[in-house]
Amino acid sequence: MFSERVYNFAAGPSVMPEQVLHSAGSEIMNYAGSGMSVMEMSHRSACFAEIFEDAKSRLKALLKVPDSHEILLLQGGATLQFAAIPMNLLGQGGTADYAVTGNFSRLAAEEAKKYGNVHIACDSTPFGHNRIPDTVNETEGASYFYYCANNTIYGTEWQTVPDVKATLVCDMSSDILSKPVDVSRYGLIYAGAQKNMAPAGLTVLIVDRSLAGKALPITPKVMDYKVQIDKDSMLNTPPCWCIYMLGKVLRWVEDMGGLSAMEERKKLRAGLLYDYLDESRMFIPHAQKGSRSDMNVTFRTGDPALDEEFLKGAASQGLLNLRGHRLTGGMRASIYNAMPIEGVQALVAYMKDFEVEHRV
Amino acid sequence: MFSERVYNFAAGPSVMPEQVLHSAGSEIMNYAGSGMSVMEMSHRSACFAEIFEDAKSRLKALLKVPDSHEILLLQGGATLQFAAIPMNLLGQGGTADYAVTGNFSRLAAEEAKKYGNVHIACDSTPFGHNRIPDTVNETEGASYFYYCANNTIYGTEWQTVPDVKATLVCDMSSDILSKPVDVSRYGLIYAGAQKNMAPAGLTVLIVDRSLAGKALPITPKVMDYKVQIDKDSMLNTPPCWCIYMLGKVLRWVEDMGGLSAMEERKKLRAGLLYDYLDESRMFIPHAQKGSRSDMNVTFRTGDPALDEEFLKGAASQGLLNLRGHRLTGGMRASIYNAMPIEGVQALVAYMKDFEVEHRV
Repeated sequence: MFSERVYNFAAGPSVMPEQVLHSAGSEIMNYAGSGMSVMEMSHRSACFAEIFEDAKSRLKALLKVPDSHEILLLQGGATLQFAAIPMNLLGQGGTADYAVTGNFSRLAAEEAKKYGNVHIACDSTPFGHNRIPDTVNETEGASYFYYCANNTIYGTEWQTVPDVKATLVCDMSSDILSKPVDVSRYGLIYAGAQKNMAPAGLTVLIVDRSLAGKALPITPKVMDYKVQIDKDSMLNTPPCWCIYMLGKVLRWVEDMGGLSAMEERKKLRAGLLYDYLDESRMFIPHAQKGSRSDMNVTFRTGDPALDEEFLKGAASQGLLNLRGHRLTGGMRASIYNAMPIEGVQALVAYMKDFEVEHRV
Repeated sequence: MFSERVYNFAAGPSVMPEQVLHSAGSEIMNYAGSGMSVMEMSHRSACFAEIFEDAKSRLKALLKVPDSHEILLLQGGATLQFAAIPMNLLGQGGTADYAVTGNFSRLAAEEAKKYGNVHIACDSTPFGHNRIPDTVNETEGASYFYYCANNTIYGTEWQTVPDVKATLVCDMSSDILSKPVDVSRYGLIYAGAQKNMAPAGLTVLIVDRSLAGKALPITPKVMDYKVQIDKDSMLNTPPCWCIYMLGKVLRWVEDMGGLSAMEERKKLRAGLLYDYLDESRMFIPHAQKGSRSDMNVTFRTGDPALDEEFLKGAASQGLLNLRGHRLTGGMRASIYNAMPIEGVQALVAYMKDFEVEHRV
């Protein structure tokens, strides 16, 4: 039982800015004199339309989304997009290139095979996804090139945008809003919101309008990008509360100084952890230099029993959810935008103490 | 600007119990000593697992869901189910019967045509959906019979369960939890949560396990009932906040006396409105006796300008969102479980005053 708030290193859903939660709590019974909670608001009401447009326009400004691209705020999660992407973008008889650099890009590639030809352009499975492959093997005339910008489970992150000819499709679920991005280079960027943006239940898409309108005939209407663009994400009821929270998080990002400030902050946070991991004689980082994620830092002691002791001790100090994914074991510190530097400092201090106490 | 809470007659998202909102607000920074908000909680954490199981078991108890049926808590809305239902239940070459009694059942039937044969078993379009047809024309050996229990837009509601041979599939989005239901008669009950259950972003399914496992090969994995049953709704991140709010609403329903009490309350609320509509010389009810919805009461004056004046006056008194759907015009009072009887009393009082003032 914690009477104070803890440091929450969960991989997603994950820590949110305290100010955002506090603000949401303060108006939960009556939003801005509307006489009702945002949770009770018709998605067609003028009041919610303002909330919706506000979130969209802040996101557009922060990410400098060009007018060629449309922002969609949808339900279903990244996993639904694993199917929606080939349904919308593969075309009859088309081939798509997939970069497999972790669990979610592998799942995306598997799902796409239901709807057309999939070519694996690179695959880091043979080396335990501990780095992003140096080269990719493109298909001439591919419908699109798919990759996952940051691999939450393995703690690796593409350091540059893949240099390919095909339309770029990117799952940015776990590093969106952590740095400036040149949106114009992408046909589609999408992200589950539950890491850097909002509570679980919202999927953000940024799609080049010229790509929409070619969905396969078996595409569910609600998954058809053209339909959702035409309906401004409101073919059906959107996840209103998550959109409202997204707006608050975006305002917080602005207040903190925008995406460049987010990038500085993440470099600081991740630097503290990686510097210590590189000098430690006990903790072994999983991701190789040159591929390391600034969002998810994965490490282990090499001794599963010691890992357990580490996790137990951490939890007792309010350093929570440091257990690695079952596919990797060990530990994982997810340090998204909303993780204060003090959380990482506390974690590194605990790691140092733990190492001193347990060094053989 | 309202300093107090209003009476919100929106069709969905819609009014929620005040106690539920208040309770959510009080623990938004730190849920039950977890040191974090439910919005920040990993869906795989022990704390969220408890919230999830609690909501499922309360729903199971309230609706007396038999062990043959599984409860799924998913994203995507009823509109995604319009596609998921035929994908999962139609089978290769199968035919499904659809009862078209309003806008959403019509949309469901149209979507199903992408995946197989659809037979319209009845259609109330010719009489403006002002009543539920008396008879249905079944297909021998139909894969399932689909109907929408309550038509939010037109204000009609099936008063009995359709007497058909095929597996029953029912969209209960707008009347679930408003009365006891014999779940064992259904192959699938599903409902968008944003009327009687939770904030928008959650879809509840109650599915007969024996029907799962026959999805068409083009079914997205996240839409496959068998996969979601096997994964206990957690193939991917569920809409955690909505599930948490669902649990609170279900506890409120229990505290109020369960589904029989909900039924008594709704009869009281709807009775007040229909009794007045039947005696009024100004207001014309849309739905015919014997088909009237206890959840959505539709009416008009017959004079669009007078309707506008009525709506404007209502809003000034804190009686909000009474505008009818654009397909019907006029007015609609949505009086879901959480609408207090005082709200309906205030509406009827205003209607009476308005009629006296404007009678020619």
